[in-house]
Amino acid sequence: MQTLKGFRDFLSSDMLIRNEAKRRIISVFEKYGFEEIQTPALEYQEVLLGKYGKDPEKLMYLFEDQGGRKVGLRYDLTVPLTRFVENNRNLNKPLKLYRIQPVWRAENPQKGRYREFYQCDFDIVGSPSPLADAEIISILNEAFLNLGFIAFKIRLNSRTILTETLKKADIPNNLHVPTLTAVDKLDKRSQAEVEKELSDKGLSKKQIDDLFETLKSNQPDESLKEVIKYATQLGVLRNLVFDPFLVRGLDYYTGAIFEVVVEKPAIGSLAGGGRYDNLIKNMGGPDLEATGSTIGLDRITDAITEENLWKNLQKTSVKVLVTIFSPDLVSRSIEVAKLLRVSGIAAEIYPNEKVNIKKQLKYASDKQIPYAVIIGPNEAIKNMVVIKDLSTKKQETTPSSALLTLIK
Amino acid sequence: MQTLKGFRDFLSSDMLIRNEAKRRIISVFEKYGFEEIQTPALEYQEVLLGKYGKDPEKLMYLFEDQGGRKVGLRYDLTVPLTRFVENNRNLNKPLKLYRIQPVWRAENPQKGRYREFYQCDFDIVGSPSPLADAEIISILNEAFLNLGFIAFKIRLNSRTILTETLKKADIPNNLHVPTLTAVDKLDKRSQAEVEKELSDKGLSKKQIDDLFETLKSNQPDESLKEVIKYATQLGVLRNLVFDPFLVRGLDYYTGAIFEVVVEKPAIGSLAGGGRYDNLIKNMGGPDLEATGSTIGLDRITDAITEENLWKNLQKTSVKVLVTIFSPDLVSRSIEVAKLLRVSGIAAEIYPNEKVNIKKQLKYASDKQIPYAVIIGPNEAIKNMVVIKDLSTKKQETTPSSALLTLIK
Repeated sequence: MQTLKGFRDFLSSDMLIRNEAKRRIISVFEKYGFEEIQTPALEYQEVLLGKYGKDPEKLMYLFEDQGGRKVGLRYDLTVPLTRFVENNRNLNKPLKLYRIQPVWRAENPQKGRYREFYQCDFDIVGSPSPLADAEIISILNEAFLNLGFIAFKIRLNSRTILTETLKKADIPNNLHVPTLTAVDKLDKRSQAEVEKELSDKGLSKKQIDDLFETLKSNQPDESLKEVIKYATQLGVLRNLVFDPFLVRGLDYYTGAIFEVVVEKPAIGSLAGGGRYDNLIKNMGGPDLEATGSTIGLDRITDAITEENLWKNLQKTSVKVLVTIFSPDLVSRSIEVAKLLRVSGIAAEIYPNEKVNIKKQLKYASDKQIPYAVIIGPNEAIKNMVVIKDLSTKKQETTPSSALLTLIK
Repeated sequence: MQTLKGFRDFLSSDMLIRNEAKRRIISVFEKYGFEEIQTPALEYQEVLLGKYGKDPEKLMYLFEDQGGRKVGLRYDLTVPLTRFVENNRNLNKPLKLYRIQPVWRAENPQKGRYREFYQCDFDIVGSPSPLADAEIISILNEAFLNLGFIAFKIRLNSRTILTETLKKADIPNNLHVPTLTAVDKLDKRSQAEVEKELSDKGLSKKQIDDLFETLKSNQPDESLKEVIKYATQLGVLRNLVFDPFLVRGLDYYTGAIFEVVVEKPAIGSLAGGGRYDNLIKNMGGPDLEATGSTIGLDRITDAITEENLWKNLQKTSVKVLVTIFSPDLVSRSIEVAKLLRVSGIAAEIYPNEKVNIKKQLKYASDKQIPYAVIIGPNEAIKNMVVIKDLSTKKQETTPSSALLTLIK
């Protein structure tokens, strides 16, 4: 039976890149004073549904638990955050929080799109200031630089501007969301196709023309100008671009919106976010403004792998494989392994005394362990060990006591 | 609406201990040459069911996905490992793998028992040697020492010995599992109660007497003696104890079994494991022996918190809060924050220019940030900053350029 589609095992080789990416992202979060929290995987359906617009419901894993409660798996890390804020009203504001956890969506699996994937979210809760948005954008910028991406852009727009545009084009309120949904597809479809969709949705020729004309001529408003100014002062330079056609899918954004795209590989946006001042209140929580972003850890890992960005990532921290010459010499090998470990040197002991040395050495080479130690009967008597450099294939016999110095 | 019972938010203060515990455990895994993998949260019911004995089925989160597939949430990290081994047959053996992920069980929530909790599993796959079991036990020992536990015991027994005992007491095969399940309760119930349960299950008085007599007189067999010898050589000393009454719940164990218990707090076992040589083959995978263990990260975190084991854990890595004196001075504060961050000093900038300084300083104190920087109009003109030590409440005015030296 095959593994479920869209669900993946991560090998240790995948984990090396994922973990290093996580470490680099976290180091930026922490430099800016963000603290980690974790939220539950399961949530009441009532809380999950209707917060993202209509489409996502089809993609949610919803079911009844043993107690007959209608529940579902986390769809993103924003709704759980609003729950967290509601549950912990006594925490001092503004909150600066990050979390790195999987989410589940029953999408059609394809390149860069999985049914279980990890998000790195970070948010500032309790500040309406453009400075908060600028901090989020600055973190995105530093995180991507820190990950080794050179050619990336941070696209920026504002829901306030988009709403103004819809009003200017005389598009009625009930068509705002469908209109934005259609405009959002402009990076994948032609303008003609999007115009057709808008027309099908009930927009007149004039409304559509006005819409595109206004969109094309849009400029940052006062609030977005502040965001750009502060972000620039924080160090975000030429790669921050105003994109009047940027929409970002989710319904709940209320102000600045942004996303990060890399030139290569063609894998869609690697991060996105924006301001959502009403979501927490609308979900029954306190009235707190918020802004934040999501970094897609799976797509990032895929992109780093595909572009081979990290050429010299060390495959293992293990320095030595201590082999076992024969069943009667196990204890000698244990002694040596113990000595190495106590000295802080990561050392494997081959965990099967019945396998021949050749196979043990192949195991070490395959794992890219630099050294192997062999203690045969001759060495055992003289309290010596053979140390073999697995890249040069050179070996030398040395007193056990000299081993540490040699390996260090 | 309350959060689902048995599901928890982890505050940043919880995360500090959890993450530090994780780091200490991982450092031991890596010293022994274990590599990290990750496995999916969802699995086919067919794969999940019947692998753990009968009881667990009631505790599993089972449902149908959008495609009508019968699926369920991960119940432990062992079945996903067998799946991983099956999916990745080409990897070199023996495999030494660890994974740290949540699992879900619809248990009755109580102290130390949650419906979502994190396990740290580590296993050696592809070695039948007692040396492999000894390595697992030695890792447990080092991990608990590294976590700061002083008074803990590693209880040890063997399924082979238990099976021999059942045969000796003339207990028929179909009653082996129910008998062991009853014996397993001896740490919570009296012998009389357990005898009553055995009698109810159909054991005769003689069988019960023979069973207890044999259990009491049991001693390690040859294989378990080897495990003990190697574990001792690896550094596991007085805290390793043979416990002839230890059963461990799961059906699939075939050899050595073990668990870690601390004296305080009374929170049940914090880790457990054993050898399971047939599970991978029985699940349709390759014929590979395996041994491994699970460390319960939630219980460990609870125990460390309850015993206040880590008194001096730093609350934040942030060194400085850069306050904002007034809206027209935001840019000056950004400059200072940027300077600090570029120099590798974790610095927060208060993300709201409309909040008064007093509240900003309270925010820093609450987060235990050591220093605050204030740039008022007088300082701004002279290119100076005020630096305030938030523990001593002392402050001094200094040129911006001297700030780095002062804080370092």
